[in-house]
Amino acid sequence: MCQLLGMNCNTPTDIIFSFEGFRRRGGLTDEHSDGWGIAFFEGEGCRLFLDYLPSISSPVADLVRAYPIKSTNVIAHIRKATQGQINLANTHPFGRELWGQYWIFAHNGNLSDLPSLEQGRFLPVGSTDSEHAYCWILNQLAERFQSPPSFAALRDTLKELSSTLAQHGTFNFLLSNGQVMFAHCSTKLHYLVRQAPFCHAHLSDTDLAVDFSRETQPSDRVAMIATEPLTDNENWTAMQSGQLIMLIDGTIQP
Amino acid sequence: MCQLLGMNCNTPTDIIFSFEGFRRRGGLTDEHSDGWGIAFFEGEGCRLFLDYLPSISSPVADLVRAYPIKSTNVIAHIRKATQGQINLANTHPFGRELWGQYWIFAHNGNLSDLPSLEQGRFLPVGSTDSEHAYCWILNQLAERFQSPPSFAALRDTLKELSSTLAQHGTFNFLLSNGQVMFAHCSTKLHYLVRQAPFCHAHLSDTDLAVDFSRETQPSDRVAMIATEPLTDNENWTAMQSGQLIMLIDGTIQP
Repeated sequence: MCQLLGMNCNTPTDIIFSFEGFRRRGGLTDEHSDGWGIAFFEGEGCRLFLDYLPSISSPVADLVRAYPIKSTNVIAHIRKATQGQINLANTHPFGRELWGQYWIFAHNGNLSDLPSLEQGRFLPVGSTDSEHAYCWILNQLAERFQSPPSFAALRDTLKELSSTLAQHGTFNFLLSNGQVMFAHCSTKLHYLVRQAPFCHAHLSDTDLAVDFSRETQPSDRVAMIATEPLTDNENWTAMQSGQLIMLIDGTIQP
Repeated sequence: MCQLLGMNCNTPTDIIFSFEGFRRRGGLTDEHSDGWGIAFFEGEGCRLFLDYLPSISSPVADLVRAYPIKSTNVIAHIRKATQGQINLANTHPFGRELWGQYWIFAHNGNLSDLPSLEQGRFLPVGSTDSEHAYCWILNQLAERFQSPPSFAALRDTLKELSSTLAQHGTFNFLLSNGQVMFAHCSTKLHYLVRQAPFCHAHLSDTDLAVDFSRETQPSDRVAMIATEPLTDNENWTAMQSGQLIMLIDGTIQP
């Protein structure tokens, strides 16, 4: 299937270290070579880099590695196609505007017999189950809330909607509007919060380490979410099936 | 204000030559240094590269120059801010999905006292007059057409909507869904169709030339649209105030 990478933090942070390990799974250390994408929120704006080339050999991935974009919310995805051709329209993350906010979504899993989108205002451009599910969620949110609800109300609604969609297959996903990030686990998703005292971290996919104590301020808090742990010397927490977490400023909300 | 660059062609073509001249106007040969962006349609998918740095010094622009993305519809914009801060949310082109199609828009001009968006489903994320006008157009289209209308009906509607918005100020714009491109001139916009027999072209903004007869097939047809002509040895046509043209496959539709 695919792999997900998310970052949510309280101060704009670059994702170069983690991305270096993650991109290797797109054709080098793993088989997810059917395209990739990454979205960086900067304020209310968002940059979305997409490529249908494998992330290990993509010139766009070289740029992302070389250009330290600082962001408080990042969602990345490397694809192993299950439904839909390998092309740009089927490349995650997907983006839409709702309530005057950009919402970015990426999915790992495979869904079938999804509910119809006939009455909704959001429609998929490509042919993946993922974009169909994403549009269904946005249609439900748009129907229930005329303006942005509280984060708590949003979480409750997303929990209900995710639970409905998870009945149609595997539904691990990340969703963010640049302020808040939601992570839903159906089968596999791990998270980690980096905060003071910061320590060394070593990537699982290549022999690269970083000393975060030299790169950070004591007040920094960075939450990472990944399908598989990205480092081999930090304590990643495995999410439970059916669990939805909400992250704001690098903190998992109680 | 800003400058626009558009390309519409019958076969996927890279825009590296034209972009090389255009990007120099973002801080080198001209003053449009408040960010820039470029959208490439590939099939129904779209890549949108944005940066709030001047296009002459942007690492993202270096990537676009080095990575020959082939596309049939491209829209680029370099910004000289009139309304709205210099940040990513205010950087053109803007993108939304309507009728299961991505629609990309970029504007040159300045608008005031725009009609309200209260009842519409598309809302601006940033604070520019341009994104407000774009959302207003999409709201009007969504209200009038439940599914994609014919290109002719779309052109008639856009002509009417553009004429309404042009009463609020200067409204030169480019709009595309990857199949068709619309260009509206309020004060300044030029176009050119390159087709066989292809010849040499020489940029106005730097001493760079290309022999298109060596880069093309005889059946290729490439329409270029730009605020100011990009080359100094080709016959660019100045559009008339109030004129809206529709381009498909590199041809201006009668």
